[in-house]
Amino acid sequence: MGTVGGGTFNVLQRNASEITRRTGRNIIVEQVAQRRTNATCEMGSTQITEDIFAVANNPNIDVVVELIGGYEPAKELVLTAIRNGKHVVTANKALIAVHGNEIFAAAREHKVVVAYEAAIAGGIPIIKSLREGLAGNQINWLAGIINGTGNFILTEMRDKGRDFADVLAEAQALGYAEADPTFDVEGIDAAHKLTILSSLAFGIPLQFDACFTEGISQVSQEDVANAEALGYRIKHLGISRRTDAGIELRVHPTLIPEKRLLANVHGVMNAVLVDGDAVGPTLYYGAGAGAEPTASAVVADIVDVVRDIDLENSTRVPSLAFGQEDLSATSILPMEQVETAYYLRMMANEKPGVLAQVTKILGERGISIEAIEQKGHATEQVPVVLLTNRVVEGQMNAAITAIEALDDIIGQITRIRVENLDG
Amino acid sequence: MGTVGGGTFNVLQRNASEITRRTGRNIIVEQVAQRRTNATCEMGSTQITEDIFAVANNPNIDVVVELIGGYEPAKELVLTAIRNGKHVVTANKALIAVHGNEIFAAAREHKVVVAYEAAIAGGIPIIKSLREGLAGNQINWLAGIINGTGNFILTEMRDKGRDFADVLAEAQALGYAEADPTFDVEGIDAAHKLTILSSLAFGIPLQFDACFTEGISQVSQEDVANAEALGYRIKHLGISRRTDAGIELRVHPTLIPEKRLLANVHGVMNAVLVDGDAVGPTLYYGAGAGAEPTASAVVADIVDVVRDIDLENSTRVPSLAFGQEDLSATSILPMEQVETAYYLRMMANEKPGVLAQVTKILGERGISIEAIEQKGHATEQVPVVLLTNRVVEGQMNAAITAIEALDDIIGQITRIRVENLDG
Repeated sequence: MGTVGGGTFNVLQRNASEITRRTGRNIIVEQVAQRRTNATCEMGSTQITEDIFAVANNPNIDVVVELIGGYEPAKELVLTAIRNGKHVVTANKALIAVHGNEIFAAAREHKVVVAYEAAIAGGIPIIKSLREGLAGNQINWLAGIINGTGNFILTEMRDKGRDFADVLAEAQALGYAEADPTFDVEGIDAAHKLTILSSLAFGIPLQFDACFTEGISQVSQEDVANAEALGYRIKHLGISRRTDAGIELRVHPTLIPEKRLLANVHGVMNAVLVDGDAVGPTLYYGAGAGAEPTASAVVADIVDVVRDIDLENSTRVPSLAFGQEDLSATSILPMEQVETAYYLRMMANEKPGVLAQVTKILGERGISIEAIEQKGHATEQVPVVLLTNRVVEGQMNAAITAIEALDDIIGQITRIRVENLDG
Repeated sequence: MGTVGGGTFNVLQRNASEITRRTGRNIIVEQVAQRRTNATCEMGSTQITEDIFAVANNPNIDVVVELIGGYEPAKELVLTAIRNGKHVVTANKALIAVHGNEIFAAAREHKVVVAYEAAIAGGIPIIKSLREGLAGNQINWLAGIINGTGNFILTEMRDKGRDFADVLAEAQALGYAEADPTFDVEGIDAAHKLTILSSLAFGIPLQFDACFTEGISQVSQEDVANAEALGYRIKHLGISRRTDAGIELRVHPTLIPEKRLLANVHGVMNAVLVDGDAVGPTLYYGAGAGAEPTASAVVADIVDVVRDIDLENSTRVPSLAFGQEDLSATSILPMEQVETAYYLRMMANEKPGVLAQVTKILGERGISIEAIEQKGHATEQVPVVLLTNRVVEGQMNAAITAIEALDDIIGQITRIRVENLDG
């Protein structure tokens, strides 16, 4: 009965008649486990306990809704509910991304549903769209803004010319960002969600540990402005793509063309772009967090379970979209082998021949330059900004090492990946 | 086996293994009725007939896919299949919008599914999102770009400064628009789709005849440019909104703020914006037509049916999202009572006091002016452009009649509705 729990309770009460019109049933919140009273909720005849396992063991309960978050005791609660033959609805991305394989196996054994629409992108029905709405497609790739805090920070940096640290402090004051913002700004939260999306898209087991993760704390105001001048915007994206060599699974700041809808998703909003072989590009947009948007997804899952609850085996859609025995062993591609374009920014001594040395190093590794700009003049050191063509990351790493070793390049090179998202 | 039929056949063949991984079943195209051979398809062992009723009566067939379009013989085919206990998948928006109530009643009687995701917005899973993904919400309103031809024309008019007739001719040459473009440009196709969306959102019977429909053939290059200068874009929208007085159901050109994602949906692409009381605004974007995008939705429906096919009653979700006995009698609001803001353009004699007369007429009907621009000078007649606040259409009609009666107003007033889409 925290933020999302209270929102879920309130949506179930407020929209009870609309939901009954849709399902032909009344959904009753029989019992709630809470540490503190949620002042937004009128509990009525709902039983209240402080013991979460009392709910999981309550024989009158058909569906257990887990909105605690984190690994434990959420995992034990969910497994207890499953063993007791109860369906489970959860918003817990960390739990699913890290322990989903084990949880789904238990659910199959006990013939119950574990639904988790709320775990990704709040109220956007992205899991339903991937598991069902796009089920005729071979998914080629997906790319999403799946952390609202990060998108709020990048939006403010661009719109108002502010610095990362300044906006982060405001986001914390507004309650968008946690006191410890690491999960949000370093991409761990997005990696949890991307791991799940990737399994749903490609039919592979959950492999959170294999996800490449880079945060936005190193994105500077200078990079935001340079991107803008080049016709791009920087977004913190989770990207997963099927290639012949393996599946890309990566979260990092990304330059994307300003005309893409995804580049125009502002503030705390989320959006996921999914490209299927038949449907082409599709996009799903909405609020990625907050009490009622998240509750919208939780209640949709409850409705889904309720619509099938009389059936002997109500697990009509596999937990990860594909049958367990049909999950693919396709490996996650190491980041060194991922191909993408790059934005590079470096400080160079203002001397003849420096750019020639840089372009030579790139050219030797098959990296051609799409755009180059040397900014400012008449100073001893000048910033140089480059956009490259697509190249595997290993080659780029080698080139960056070689360029940084040049006498006339000062300090480290800033590297941000570039994606056109057009196929 | 026309465009969509061929696309569906090919997607089912090409993605057979991916679909089997998702459903645990093989989907076999047992028999096809076709007038002409589709050169893109390798028919293999599929039986071919010219008699569509042979398919509907074939005892080996579980699911009949209707991709003929139009009212007849599609309706008789679908009803025959239903009476024979077969599930039906169709992409036929006209059929569902006009005869859906009767067809769904037959489906309930015979306990079969009639699925029609492909009828609206091609490959975008908008029906699934409304019926299932947003099932916890009371839907407040929705607004969609649901005709690709119209959106292509408006996009070209804006991007290239071209005239309506010129772009329409090109769209016909490219195959986007039919030889008779009436269904597309006059909004009838969009009204079919909006009628269905409105029922799914609000739980009301299909009422195509009550839909207000205005096309884009009267939108001039001048209006497109004026809108742009005011920070808006003109889109041909289907809008449905729940109000205390009734449900709005209307298709018309609409000025929307240029910053909205919907304003940035270009060319033949479709998008639907749905506002729910819990989730807030959500948007669904993708290709609204074409062989394979439409096939994506057809195959998703087939997969949905197949996932439930062993169940005694596999109609887990009501056809119109709400139970038949729970459909609401809420009436459709007559257009005269719909409240919206307006863009007005008129030609006025360049004389002192003319604008004062116009604003007086508006003011007497409670209409205030948000922006006014008198364009050009030093000519005898000048165009005047106005943006008004929100007012019921009946008041605006009266004001327009009174203004057109002024001696110094020449000809008819152009009126385009304005929506901010922000709540």
